[in-house]
Amino acid sequence: MSFNKNISLAVIKRLPRYYRYLGDILDDGITRISSKEISQRMDITASQIRQDLNNFGCFGQQGYGYNTELLYGEIKKILGLEKQYSMIIVGAGNIGQALANYINFQKRGFNFIALFDANPKLIGLTVRGIEIYDVDKLAKYLSNIPVDIAVLAIPKNAAHDVAQILIDGGVKGIWNFSNIDIKTPDDVKVENVHLTDSLMTLSYKLNEQEILSRLNRPAH
Amino acid sequence: MSFNKNISLAVIKRLPRYYRYLGDILDDGITRISSKEISQRMDITASQIRQDLNNFGCFGQQGYGYNTELLYGEIKKILGLEKQYSMIIVGAGNIGQALANYINFQKRGFNFIALFDANPKLIGLTVRGIEIYDVDKLAKYLSNIPVDIAVLAIPKNAAHDVAQILIDGGVKGIWNFSNIDIKTPDDVKVENVHLTDSLMTLSYKLNEQEILSRLNRPAH
Repeated sequence: MSFNKNISLAVIKRLPRYYRYLGDILDDGITRISSKEISQRMDITASQIRQDLNNFGCFGQQGYGYNTELLYGEIKKILGLEKQYSMIIVGAGNIGQALANYINFQKRGFNFIALFDANPKLIGLTVRGIEIYDVDKLAKYLSNIPVDIAVLAIPKNAAHDVAQILIDGGVKGIWNFSNIDIKTPDDVKVENVHLTDSLMTLSYKLNEQEILSRLNRPAH
Repeated sequence: MSFNKNISLAVIKRLPRYYRYLGDILDDGITRISSKEISQRMDITASQIRQDLNNFGCFGQQGYGYNTELLYGEIKKILGLEKQYSMIIVGAGNIGQALANYINFQKRGFNFIALFDANPKLIGLTVRGIEIYDVDKLAKYLSNIPVDIAVLAIPKNAAHDVAQILIDGGVKGIWNFSNIDIKTPDDVKVENVHLTDSLMTLSYKLNEQEILSRLNRPAH
């Protein structure tokens, strides 16, 4: 049974932005704020903001707006940031090590407990005190230690097999940096960070006018 | 004059995926393919695929489908991947260095020519032969050497100022890894990779059912 259809992905993708901006607003010492004021900072219409937040039962008060701290706390709950998550990184290459070194994740409750790699030169080394294990030991590791989230940062040709090991091992969230789409059962959530796709999107934007004018698309 | 309104961002975001899948289809030795067959691989409806590609004048033939190689080449052009881009990375920390080490970008025409950082310990070092310069020299560097794309991988408190230097220096594309939204003029394109937002989106997905059931949202 899934509630997914209730909240659109577009709304979900905006939640971290709300959380980020409300954090800044709190830092600015603003204790109450209207959807209009949030709108001016975030480049989202006030009505869109009210709609988004109403989805989660966060209602502003007419003529008062939102209590910044309460709203911030609510969105923190909605994003599941009151919990702690155990995380592993599969693929101790550049991106994997960069993520392991990024302490801000830990501050927010995302705790890296192990890295895995196939490269014998890396196995046994540590990154910020986190050991790199042989990826052949991944299944056994998961059978002993519960892991909430796995970062997938390996070449695409190995991604499907490793993803299956993660799924079989009870991992419920996969943060996928491998430049390939992986299929998972409904109860295993995936968030993709396809860096090459992202860079290509940027190069498209750089060339869009030239491309569209070549196609004789009318200007707006 | 902007053509942006012509093609929705959703379509644009799918283009790199089409390119990626068509590359795999070519590797599989498939010389012609129908939108239906692409659809089965990509989890997008065939009509959506035809619509997306028609936007760019890529029409399949009734009963024949698409010539894989021609379509792949067209999308490569549309994504601006026939050109070479000069790139710099501002912020030679974990992510900045990871990106500098990622040679696949170079293979696709994205050429890193310099890194910049404020940390004296890093200045003068090289990553994959690419020198790390003092960020104070960024403006002068840009006045001498044309840069197409800059990667912004610095703490959010410095992002706005550095972005302004990049814009003043004639950089036309900013690949933004700093966890803050930056404003640019219409002719300077931005693509955001907000890793913390992405991880929070995943933690939301992990908790969605619990959250929505707490809010007594009906199941579908």
